[in-house]
Order: sequence, then structure tokens, then C-alpha cells
Amino acid sequence: MINVLLLQGPNLNLLGRREPHIYGTDTQQSIHDRLCRLAEDLGARLTTFQSNHEGELIDRIQSAPTEFQGILINAGALTHTSLALADALTSVALPFVEIHISNVYARESFRHHSHLSAGAAGIVVGFGTTGYDLALQGLLGRIRGQGA
Amino acid sequence: MINVLLLQGPNLNLLGRREPHIYGTDTQQSIHDRLCRLAEDLGARLTTFQSNHEGELIDRIQSAPTEFQGILINAGALTHTSLALADALTSVALPFVEIHISNVYARESFRHHSHLSAGAAGIVVGFGTTGYDLALQGLLGRIRGQGA
Amino acid sequence: MINVLLLQGPNLNLLGRREPHIYGTDTQQSIHDRLCRLAEDLGARLTTFQSNHEGELIDRIQSAPTEFQGILINAGALTHTSLALADALTSVALPFVEIHISNVYARESFRHHSHLSAGAAGIVVGFGTTGYDLALQGLLGRIRGQGA
Amino acid sequence: MINVLLLQGPNLNLLGRREPHIYGTDTQQSIHDRLCRLAEDLGARLTTFQSNHEGELIDRIQSAPTEFQGILINAGALTHTSLALADALTSVALPFVEIHISNVYARESFRHHSHLSAGAAGIVVGFGTTGYDLALQGLLGRIRGQGA
Amino acid sequence: MINVLLLQGPNLNLLGRREPHIYGTDTQQSIHDRLCRLAEDLGARLTTFQSNHEGELIDRIQSAPTEFQGILINAGALTHTSLALADALTSVALPFVEIHISNVYARESFRHHSHLSAGAAGIVVGFGTTGYDLALQGLLGRIRGQGA
Amino acid sequence: MINVLLLQGPNLNLLGRREPHIYGTDTQQSIHDRLCRLAEDLGARLTTFQSNHEGELIDRIQSAPTEFQGILINAGALTHTSLALADALTSVALPFVEIHISNVYARESFRHHSHLSAGAAGIVVGFGTTGYDLALQGLLGRIRGQGA
Amino acid sequence: MINVLLLQGPNLNLLGRREPHIYGTDTQQSIHDRLCRLAEDLGARLTTFQSNHEGELIDRIQSAPTEFQGILINAGALTHTSLALADALTSVALPFVEIHISNVYARESFRHHSHLSAGAAGIVVGFGTTGYDLALQGLLGRIRGQGA
Amino acid sequence: MINVLLLQGPNLNLLGRREPHIYGTDTQQSIHDRLCRLAEDLGARLTTFQSNHEGELIDRIQSAPTEFQGILINAGALTHTSLALADALTSVALPFVEIHISNVYARESFRHHSHLSAGAAGIVVGFGTTGYDLALQGLLGRIRGQGA
Amino acid sequence: MINVLLLQGPNLNLLGRREPHIYGTDTQQSIHDRLCRLAEDLGARLTTFQSNHEGELIDRIQSAPTEFQGILINAGALTHTSLALADALTSVALPFVEIHISNVYARESFRHHSHLSAGAAGIVVGFGTTGYDLALQGLLGRIRGQGA
Amino acid sequence: MINVLLLQGPNLNLLGRREPHIYGTDTQQSIHDRLCRLAEDLGARLTTFQSNHEGELIDRIQSAPTEFQGILINAGALTHTSLALADALTSVALPFVEIHISNVYARESFRHHSHLSAGAAGIVVGFGTTGYDLALQGLLGRIRGQGA
Amino acid sequence: MINVLLLQGPNLNLLGRREPHIYGTDTQQSIHDRLCRLAEDLGARLTTFQSNHEGELIDRIQSAPTEFQGILINAGALTHTSLALADALTSVALPFVEIHISNVYARESFRHHSHLSAGAAGIVVGFGTTGYDLALQGLLGRIRGQGA
Amino acid sequence: MINVLLLQGPNLNLLGRREPHIYGTDTQQSIHDRLCRLAEDLGARLTTFQSNHEGELIDRIQSAPTEFQGILINAGALTHTSLALADALTSVALPFVEIHISNVYARESFRHHSHLSAGAAGIVVGFGTTGYDLALQGLLGRIRGQGA
Repeated sequence: MINVLLLQGPNLNLLGRREPHIYGTDTQQSIHDRLCRLAEDLGARLTTFQSNHEGELIDRIQSAPTEFQGILINAGALTHTSLALADALTSVALPFVEIHISNVYARESFRHHSHLSAGAAGIVVGFGTTGYDLALQGLLGRIRGQGA
Repeated sequence: MINVLLLQGPNLNLLGRREPHIYGTDTQQSIHDRLCRLAEDLGARLTTFQSNHEGELIDRIQSAPTEFQGILINAGALTHTSLALADALTSVALPFVEIHISNVYARESFRHHSHLSAGAAGIVVGFGTTGYDLALQGLLGRIRGQGA
Repeated sequence: MINVLLLQGPNLNLLGRREPHIYGTDTQQSIHDRLCRLAEDLGARLTTFQSNHEGELIDRIQSAPTEFQGILINAGALTHTSLALADALTSVALPFVEIHISNVYARESFRHHSHLSAGAAGIVVGFGTTGYDLALQGLLGRIRGQGA
Repeated sequence: MINVLLLQGPNLNLLGRREPHIYGTDTQQSIHDRLCRLAEDLGARLTTFQSNHEGELIDRIQSAPTEFQGILINAGALTHTSLALADALTSVALPFVEIHISNVYARESFRHHSHLSAGAAGIVVGFGTTGYDLALQGLLGRIRGQGA
Repeated sequence: MINVLLLQGPNLNLLGRREPHIYGTDTQQSIHDRLCRLAEDLGARLTTFQSNHEGELIDRIQSAPTEFQGILINAGALTHTSLALADALTSVALPFVEIHISNVYARESFRHHSHLSAGAAGIVVGFGTTGYDLALQGLLGRIRGQGA
Repeated sequence: MINVLLLQGPNLNLLGRREPHIYGTDTQQSIHDRLCRLAEDLGARLTTFQSNHEGELIDRIQSAPTEFQGILINAGALTHTSLALADALTSVALPFVEIHISNVYARESFRHHSHLSAGAAGIVVGFGTTGYDLALQGLLGRIRGQGA
Repeated sequence: MINVLLLQGPNLNLLGRREPHIYGTDTQQSIHDRLCRLAEDLGARLTTFQSNHEGELIDRIQSAPTEFQGILINAGALTHTSLALADALTSVALPFVEIHISNVYARESFRHHSHLSAGAAGIVVGFGTTGYDLALQGLLGRIRGQGA
Repeated sequence: MINVLLLQGPNLNLLGRREPHIYGTDTQQSIHDRLCRLAEDLGARLTTFQSNHEGELIDRIQSAPTEFQGILINAGALTHTSLALADALTSVALPFVEIHISNVYARESFRHHSHLSAGAAGIVVGFGTTGYDLALQGLLGRIRGQGA
Repeated sequence: MINVLLLQGPNLNLLGRREPHIYGTDTQQSIHDRLCRLAEDLGARLTTFQSNHEGELIDRIQSAPTEFQGILINAGALTHTSLALADALTSVALPFVEIHISNVYARESFRHHSHLSAGAAGIVVGFGTTGYDLALQGLLGRIRGQGA
Repeated sequence: MINVLLLQGPNLNLLGRREPHIYGTDTQQSIHDRLCRLAEDLGARLTTFQSNHEGELIDRIQSAPTEFQGILINAGALTHTSLALADALTSVALPFVEIHISNVYARESFRHHSHLSAGAAGIVVGFGTTGYDLALQGLLGRIRGQGA
Repeated sequence: MINVLLLQGPNLNLLGRREPHIYGTDTQQSIHDRLCRLAEDLGARLTTFQSNHEGELIDRIQSAPTEFQGILINAGALTHTSLALADALTSVALPFVEIHISNVYARESFRHHSHLSAGAAGIVVGFGTTGYDLALQGLLGRIRGQGA
Repeated sequence: MINVLLLQGPNLNLLGRREPHIYGTDTQQSIHDRLCRLAEDLGARLTTFQSNHEGELIDRIQSAPTEFQGILINAGALTHTSLALADALTSVALPFVEIHISNVYARESFRHHSHLSAGAAGIVVGFGTTGYDLALQGLLGRIRGQGA
């Protein structure tokens, strides 16, 4: 059984309410529920943690290795500004997949650069909340050593 | 039945032989075979077209709308240099998904910018050749209007 | 009765003690007291919240819509570095006014760019702590639909 | 009695007619009338001067010290291009407040930089024509030595 | 009958005398005369106004809508430096065509950027003084709604 | 009798179908037909060649001098990326006019730079497909030595 | 007796475990123990505070002046991104020394710039964890007014 | 007898009053008087023209060739912003010397670039008002063909 | 016997005719003939392939390893724009030498950067067509392991 | 016994006389004397060499390996401009420590970049002349393999 | 009696022989002779020192204060690259005048920036070798406190 | 008999000892010996001069014209920093060939720009020490007027 941590960064608790023309109508809860079922189908278990605090996200990443074999992360706006988050992910040496719901390359230029990408096992951008499903599959494939 | 076109850009015919530490050992043929089966499972049909010629890729994109409902594209190095390819994709107004086998953000800086991304329905980066499978699922979801 | 939230970012709790040649001798408390009286005169009520934690400021912004009709914000140095704060303000869709006590354009160049400004209902810079009074008036005018 | 000069730069004579979705429907005359009343209430007197000619604005600034104790200026597009105007303001050593009707940071990037700001006593941006009222209050406060 | 205003910016009164290897030997008067005949042939009337003063050009643009249906403008060096001129053209909302006698892209790099171009109905560069004839035809076509 | 070659670059075969809000409803064929008649009126003959292949366009340019006295070229997206095309045009030393249907300066910034412009005999931008007519006139004038 | 505060930023709690080829095998605890002994030898007392939260580090800096005469800080990745931390250090006006364990100039370019350096009493880079010992000596020298 | 025109740009009429720590206490009149005497000693005659209007300076330059053999110019802030002034100087093809009273390279970076310098016969910077005397000597030497 | 492929990029078929003041009077044929004799003297055999099509050059590179032990390439303008060509060269892992006939560093700045250089076994610039001879010698030395 | 070479670059012979508000009142001789005593205490021996000539410094570095086990270097302004000095240090493969007396990050921006840093064993900045003592300790620790 | 040192940088010993179309036909000796006579007329004495070695120029500057009251310097290409020379001039705190024979702003862009200018008492550019005469007058005026 | 000067810049005296994985195992002496023999075969004579001092290299270049007809130069790191060296080469007007042993384009980005290249008769990069042989041949060809 593979355990996977889904990290949601600042403002993602507002999913489904915040700017639905950009982020769609799924809520954080509905994504969690759907992913849990998908994880189960794929022989895995998913835990979700959301925070608006960079420090809490870093704390959670640091404690991840004893519980989890991989991380899914949508770091929200911290993607573009937090080197500390990127360092935390590098430090724990777990494979992680970076997710963006919207197509960040079709938005403001400050959303085109990610501090996380260079260390990621994979990146999924622009598929709406379906991206979480693809990312989970990709991460599990990576952990099981497929498709290298 | 949804028809999908898989476009492979310059040098991707060498897959499995070229720099396997970067691109893995799958060949273009084995990817095609695997994707065809996956497409069939998902109620779709896949056609692959590879070329080292920008012009041939553009010709193929222009003729796509009469046959296909969506495009998967790994444009290789043209990703970073060909505005004409990006214009062709925009012109035909089919949803397309951009794929990169390797994590381009962990490589040379000239591979960090894509002319295609702003118009893409989704982007999948760094999962090795598994990325083609995820991209196909994501594209079919898009065409069927899921997960917006 | 209009309710307004005044958000003070990192280090603004030191007002009156920190670098008084730049920020003056008013304290956060004295600004709060004066603004409350001004708000009352203008038919409004003011609440102040200060934090050195980006995450706490975001949490407060997210919960604001149920209590407040507008926000005054002096985000301190987060003005220049926090996209997450800017995203939070955009998400809640309340009108907000950005305040800077000192003339940031007469200081270091890294203080010349603000992540918040593009979404602001108005910006007040350089009037010392009097800027809070002007900002409150301007925000109330905006909420009441004046001077568009 | 404090005398204040309101300078309006190029194209501001068109206020109320030019792009009303950006600049509102107040005319230069109606702003002048309203500000005169506000000035009177605050123990001051206001004179307005508009020109499309950089040179005339500079001439007016140079002659200001004998008549005025402070300047309100909306320099229009000269804000972004005229060093000579900025030098004139610096030369006469009167406190001045810079005003922008629209939120220049939500518009083209060439409107994000101002040659005037570094020398300003205060800056008011984005409140529509209400910004003139706030600027006048702020300037009078500055002249009377309040809120430093 | 369509009335068209031809605006000539700084130093264009020297045409025919100034650097003839760049600007040719036609004078402003001979261009005016030839364009008047062409305008007549095409059912239009042309007025020429030249000034070395940015402010006078702006004044003329502001008063244009009551007399003219379109503007031809060779703003000379103001092309590259005057946002106020560009704002004036945008404010009056008349279609205008931008003309450069020489090929500005074959000259100093500071002549490669124009503040006017983004708002222009059309741009004609490098045909010598024949460019005025082409621009007039193009402008009249635009006003009459051809070739959109 | 002057022979002129009209070169149309990538995606211009889609004219009239591709993004008509940008490029209008004229097709490549209708432009060709109209230009042939105009050429005839002006004592010239026009040949059109379109390709999505940079190499074919270069081949055509290289063989042009034996048949043609000048070139009209709308290189589409290759305008911004192909130095080889620009070198070919320089090599054959025929006068050429660069055409853009849309106002490229009102679009994405990567469309603001042209590799062709520095060598062009003239440039026509933004008049819709009418620009081809103006360009043809301008080119013929150049070849006949007018308006230098 | 001089009291010194050692601040350790994000991910430094992982010292000795995280990327030992870069950061060595000393743990935060062993550094603390060694520095305490060194401090004692030099007539000083050391307190260590580590946090992954920018806000907690700022809170701790703000309360420092009542207890400490100087600060040693290794801000980790916040070095490169946190203006708020730099402002806090400037606000409390205690001398501080900036420490980096690894040679940041031999790593990624985004680690070459520090927001803290301009205000530092001294900077020690690249000596591994020995840098803490040097920094403590340097800070105590500064506080005692030596070697100015 | 050589006739020389001294052009003084915006704000130079304030010399002696404006920021005397930068520009000294000589007035425009006293400079004129001293230069006239020096000119006479050197067999020349000097005329001074000052304006805050770019257009008036251009007009004066255009009419200069019939009266003068050379120009001394301190264009003030227009030095850094006016291409039209530079074009005017180039157009009339008179030798001109550029003067700056203060050392512009020790001031704000926007004063480090001059549009005039590339075309100047000589440049004198930073000698206070003595620079006018040196410039006059240098210009007369140039006109007489000395020291090439 | 060592087999070497000489690749000539766009417009190099015009050698001897195109801009002879830059490229000299040797033709592609005469270079080929001379190099064949030199190759023979050095115990090698040379094949030349020229194309104006990026795709054809890539195809030729991909098929090279079965026939050739090294490549000489003058990619013309594709040097500066084609990442796909550079990728092809890297993919086949043959040593290649980059040749430029003219001194590209004495020409336009866009000719100063080469996508090929980082992977080249050697680079020869500016010796006219003699550079092909030097490059062949250098390449053969490389293949035989000399002068490392 | 470890032998250490202290290299002092241009203008450091003026220490104690040159700009004492920046560099303090210690002279080169007094630093040398103090460091010799410290070296002796730490079981090492120190030699000082100062030169204003880049070439002499390089010569001295090249001959260092036969006499010394490590280098302390304050390269003065050559820090920012001399790649040859950096190459020399890299060539001899001795550990070296870079020293700056003043806080270069609080001075002109051209002093913020060092060609030496990437290769340094450690860097000490801003402690005044005490920095030499810290650097010596750090270097000896490095040579003895401590604190990695 | 004022003593002045004239420093000539690299390649200036070639004056009169090197590129006379740029630098004229005066030799270093003839300039020295002429300046000595001018100095004598003005109650001063001139010494010339030329070197192609940055280090020798720095040595000479350092020893200057005991003999000289001011420096004339044409640093040649070191103007643009030597921070060490600029530091030496600042260190000795003698007034110095920077001279360039040619108009550096009409030449390559790397000659447009000078490391010396910010500290200079005055700058003379482009008057040919006459510039030395003007510079000497300007320097003597500065030393005698004229024209500030 | 043609006389050629081989100039070796800073640190090249270390050839064969310094970083042999980059520069190979040939020494300066062995290169000199081999080149002398090659020169003799080609009817020429070679002199080698090495220095770590920019000034000595410049002195040697200045005296070269009376002895030599051409120069081979590997300027080492001065390639990237010394405008004075480039000026010296330009001044003496001898043809020179620039040599780099390693492929500088595959190394740090600061080694990608050369101040010498624009004036060079030819450039040879990356062939190891064989590059000296190629450069000598190329230079002699140039001097004898071949292959232009």
C-alpha cells in the first residue's frame, strides 16, 4: 500500500468559490473524495493537508518521509515565490508532482516561473481539477518505477 | 468514437536510441502501440505522425480538423523556437495537449520557454513516456467536457 | 453601517518605535483610535488586525467577506514579495485600498513594485500616517459608489 | 489662507469626454468647482491651470512660489516621460502631491513608472476624480505639518 | 466628402533640405500639393499642419473630430518619446495612419519602437515620400470600411 | 512589364478561415485575383507562392531573380523567427516589401520584432488585406525609382 | 555578559540529515552545544531559535532587543526572498551577522542575492558549520567595538 | 567674426536660485555677460536663448544656420528625453558642444544617458559654470579647424 | 579510411554569388572539390550535402552514424535559430566541427550566438573558405585522438 | 606547520590612510603583525604580499603551491573585474579564503559581484580588519579538515 | 605654483600613429610640450606619465599627493574596465579631470560607460587633443576654487 | 620568410599542469617546439611570448610591427575583460588569430564573450592544443592572401 500526501497551498481552500471561471466549481473536499477513491482503485491511500501558511506546509513536508512515499503539491502562489518550500521538498527527497489547475502560461507572466519545477518528478498544468487525477496516476507510476 | 492525432516533432523518431538516460528506452513504435490500446479502452482511436520538418507538422495540423477532435503534441526542440507551429495549432482551434518526456525545467534554460503552452488545453512534463498516457486521458476528458 | 477591516502587515506593530525618521511617531494604537473616530464620523466602523505572518493575514482576508465591506491594507514588506496575499485579496472580491506611510519611490528600488496595486480600488502613498485617514475616506467613497 | 495650484497635464481638458470608462464623467470644470468649495471649507484657495504643453506647465511651476504654498499635479502622460517637469517641481521646492485618476498599475506597463514620484509629498492613485479631494486634504495637512 | 488631417511632427518642415540621403528631396509643400490632388481624385480633402511643439500637435488632434474623419501622422522623433501624443490620438478616437519616410528599422535602435503603433489603423514605413500616398489610400479605405 | 512574386508564409493558406476577427474574410485566392487585376492596371504581372515550409520559401526566393523584379512577402510567423529567410532575401538583392494583415503592434510582444524589416524596401502593417494592394503599388513605385 | 541570539531559518532543523554532501553532518543541536561553550569562553551566552515560519522569526527578532545585544542568523532560503525579515532586522537596530554554511556562490544563481546583507554587521559564507564559530567571534568583536 | 548661439534648456533660467549646492550661484545673465566678453577676446560674438519649451528650442535651432557658425547647448533634462532636439541639431549640421554644469555621472542614473552626445563636436561635464567658458573655446577651435 | 560528412545550411548553395565581399568567390562546388583532395591526402573521404530545409539537414544528420565518423557543418543562419538541429547533432553523438566563413563577431549582434557551439568538437570562424580546410584537419585530428 | 599566504590587492597598501570611515585605521603592517601572532598561536606561519599589479598577484599565486598550503586574499577592486586572477586561483588548486573589509553589499552595486567567490573555500565580509583574523582561522580549519 | 600630473593610459603612447582618423596626428610628446607652455602661462607646472600597465598607473596615482595638486587623466580603454584605477583616484582625494580625445559616444557601446566619471572634478570629451588644453584650464580653475 | 608572434596570456605558462582535463597535457614549451617546426615547413618563423601582465602583452603588441607580419594570440581570461589588449591589437593593424584551447562555449557564460573577436582575422576554438597548428596555417594563409 502506497501512502501519498496531497498538499494544497494558500487560497486553495477557497476552490469552488474563488474565481470559478478560472478554477472551476469542484471544492477541495470533492477533489479529496474523488482522489481517495482513485487512490484506492490504484492500491494507494491519500491524505490531504491545506494551509495558507508557508511554514506549516514546510513542517508537513519535513514530517512526510515517515508516513508517505510521495507528494502531490499545488502550492498556489507560493509556487512562484517560496524557495523555502522548494528546499523543503528537495530536503526530504520524496518524489513529488507539481499541479496547476489553470493554464498558468495563459495568465500573468509572474505565474510562468516555478521554484518547484526543477526538482519535480512530473508536472501537470491546465487540465482543471482533472489534473489531480493525472498527477496521482503519474506519481504512483513513478514510485513503482514505471515509464522512466 | 473520438479520433486523436499524436504529433511527434524533430528527433523523436530516435526515441529509445537517443540519450536514453534522458528519454528512456521506449521507442516511438512502442509508445504508439501502447497508446492505441489505451485509446481503445477509453473509446478513442489514435494516429501518430512524426516529422523532422516544421512545415510537414504544420501541414498535418492544418488538415487535422476534418479527421480529429484533438491533438497530442511533443514538438521537441520546435517547442522553443517555432511560432509558426504555435500559430497553426491556434488556427485550427482543436484542443491540444503539450507533452515533454523529460523535465525540461531541470535542463538548459532555453528549454524552459514554450511557444505552445499559452494555447494548450493542458501540459504534461517530466513523467517519461508515461506522460503520453496521462496526456491522452487528459485530452479525452477535455473533449468530453470533464473537470473544467 | 459600513464595516471596514484595517490590515497591518509585518513590522507595523513597531510603528512609532521603528525608524521614526521614516515612519513618524504615531503608534499602531493611536492610528487605530483616530481612525475609529473618523470612521464613526463617516458612518462606519473599523477593526484593526496586525500580523507578522503572511498566513494569518491571508486567513483574515478569507474570512473578511462575512463581516466587512472593504479593506484598508498596509502590507509592509509583503507588498513587494507576497503573491499569495495578492491572490487572497483578489479571491474575496472586496474593494481594498493600499497604503504606504513613507514615499516608497524615494527609497530602495525593491520597494517600487507592489504585487497588490493592480487589484486595488485605490492607492495612497507618502502622506505619513495621515494616509490612513485619506484611504478610509477614499474606500468609503468607493463602497458608496462616489467619484467613479 | 493657503493658496494651492492645481496643474492638469495633457489631455486632461478632455475629462468627462475622453474614455469615460477609464476616467469617469466629471469634467475639469466640475472638479475645479468642487475642489474650490472643499478648499474654502479647509481654509484654502485653489487655482487650476491646464495645458497640453510641457513648457507652459514648467513656466507655471517656476512662477508658483510667489503665489502658492503647494501644488496638486496630474501630469497625465508627461508623468512617464518628462524629466524637465520633474526638475521644475524639484527646483521650486514647493510640496506637491501627484494624482492619477485611474489605477495606472492596472493599465499598460509604460504607465507604471513616474518621474515625479520620488520627489512627491504624497501620491494618490485610482480613486477616480475623488482622488483630487483626498490629495488636497493630504497636501494641506503636509503644509500645516500634520501626520509626519 | 471625407476630410483628412495630415500632421507633420518636429523637423519635418525641413523635408527636402534635411539629410536628403535619408529623407529625399520632396518638400513638405510638394507633398501637400500632391496629396491634395490624390485626395480630390479619391473624393476627399486634405489639410496639413506641421509643428515642432508637442503641445500644438496635441491641441490640433483634440480639435480634429469636429472637422475630420481621419488622421495621417508622421510624428517624427516624437513617435518614439511622446506618450501624450499617443494618448491624444486615443482620446479622440479617429482612425489614424502612422507614416515613416525612411525605414526606421534600418537606423538607430531607438527608432525601432513607436508609442503610436498599437493604436494605429495602419502603418506605412520606408517608401520615401510615396508612403504618404499609400497611407492616404489606406486611411480612406479604412474609413469606408474596406478590406477589414 | 514588371514581374512580381507574392510570397505567403505559414498558415496564410488558411486566410478567410483562420481567426477572421483578426485576419478578415478574404481568402488567399481572392487576394491573388484582386492583386492580379491591380498589377495588370499598373503594367505588371503577379505570381503567388504559399508554403508552410521555410525551406521551400527560401528555395523560391533563390530562384526569383531570373523571373522577377521584386517581391511582396507576408512571412507569417517566420517574420519573427527565421534569419535564414531574411538572409535569402538579402542574398538575391531584389527589392521586397513586407506585409502584415493585422496590426502586429497591438498583439503579443513576440510579434513586434521582424527579422526582415531592416532589409525591406517598405513595410505595410495593419490595413487588413488592403495592405497587399498598397504594398504592390509601393513596390512598383520603388522599382520604377519613384518617391525616393 | 553579552547575550546573543542564534536564529536558524527554514529547513535548518534538518541539518545533519538534509543533503549532507552540501551541509555536512553536524546537527542543529551539536552546533548549539559547541557554540554555547565557545560563547562561554568568550564571556557571552547563546540562545538558539529555529523556525520554518517567517512570521515566527520576525516575532522573535522584534522581541530580541530586551534580551540580546546581537544576532547570528542563517535565514536559509528566506535570505533570498524575505524583505519582511530584513525589515525586522533593520527595525530592531541590533548588530547581526549573516551565515551561510555552503558556498552559495557555487550553487544556483538564485542563491547569490541576499536581502539581508546590506544591513549586516558581517557575513560569513562557505566554511561549513565552522562558520557559526567565526560569526560568533566576529559579532562579539563588533559589539565590543573592535576592529572597526 | 564667428557667431555662436548659446541654447539653455528647461529650468536653466533659474540658475543661481535653483539648488545652488548643485548648480552654483552664477545666474544665466552673469554667464551670458562673462561669455560675451570671452567671445569678444576670441574674435567671436555670442547670443543666448533660453526656453522651457522643447518646440521653441527646435525652432531656434532650425533658424540658426543663417546666423551662426556653431552652437553651445545645455539642454537640461531634455538631454535625456528629447530625440526631437537631437534630430534638430543633426538636421542643421552645425557643430555643437554639449554642456552640463554638474557632474551628471555622480547623480541619478537617468541623467547618465544623453541623446545629444553621439552627434556632438565635444562635451564638457562637471566644471560648474566654468564649463561654458571651456565649451566656447573648444567650439571656436573646432570651427577654426584646430586640434582635430 | 575515415568518412566525413560536410553539411551546408540555407543559402550556402549561393556561395560565390551571394555577397562576395562577405563570403568570397569560392563556390560550393569548388570547396567540395578542394576538400575532397585534402581529405584524400589525409586518408579520408568527404561527402557534401546542402539544403535550405532544416528538416532535411536533421534527416541527414540522423542517418549519418552508419556512414560517417564525423561531421563538418556550416549551418548558415540556422546556427542562430535552430535548437532542433543542435539536438540532432547531440543525438547522433558524432564529433562535429562548426564553421563560419565570415567573422560573425564583426557583423550583426544576432549572429554572435550559436546553438551548436556548446556541443562542438571545435569551431573555426572568419578564415573565409580556408576555414573548411582547417576544420577538416581539426576534425580528423579529433577522431584520431590527437591534441586533446 | 602550515604556511599561509596573505595576498593584498590594489590600493590595500593605503589601508589606514585611505577613506578611514570605510576601511578603518589599521595599516597593512599592523594587520600583518597581528595575523602573524595569531598564526603562531594556531601553529601556522603567515607571509604577506601586496601589489597594485594584477600580473604580479597572478605570478605570486602560481608560485604559491611549493611554499604554502592555503591563501587568504583581499583582491580589492580586482575582485570584481579580474577573471585572470580567479583562473590563477583555480589553477593552483589551493584552498583560499576571500576577504572584504567593508560590507560590499552596502556600497555601489558594482561591488556586489565577485569573480572569486564561486571557487572560494570561504568568504568573510564586513567585519573590518577583524575579518582577516576570522578568515585565517577558517582557512586553517579547512586545511585541517574541520567543520566540513 | 600648482603642480599637475598628466596620466596617459594604455596605447596612448601610440598617439599620432594609431588610427589617426580617430585620434589625430598630435603625438604624446607634442601634447606634452604644448601643455607645458600653457601650464606655465597659467602659473602651473605639468608632468606627464604614460603606461600600458594598470598597476604602474595606480602606483603613480598613489604617490601623487606629495607632489601634485591635481591630475589630468586619459585612461584609454582602462576607463571602461578598471575599478582599481577608479579606487586609486578616489583614495588619494586629489581633484582629477577625465579626458577623451575622440567622442566615445559616437563609437562602440562599450566605450559609453566610464568607471572614473562619478568621481571626476570634470570631464572633457571629443575635442581631439585640444581637450587636454581645456581640461588643464578647468582643473586649475577647480583647484583655485573658481566657477563652482 | 614570414615572422609570426605567438602571444600567450595569463596562466598559460601553467599549460600541461593546470586542469589537464580541460587543457590537456601539452606544455607551453612543447607547443612552441611543435609550432616552430610547422612554421619552418610553411616558410615561416615563430616567436613565443607569455606573460601574466596585461601591460607586458600590450607593450609586446606595440613593438610587434617592426618584427612580425602576424600574431597568434591566446589571451586566456583577458580575452573576456581587457579592452586595452583589444585596442592594442587594433592599433598595430597586424592580422591576428584568436585561439582557445577548450570549447569556451561549453563552459561558464562569462567565457562566451570575447573583446578580441570583432577585430580578428580568424578564430579557432576547442581543438585542444591542435588549435595552435590550425591557427598558424590560417594566419599564414591570410597573410599570403589566400581563401578570402
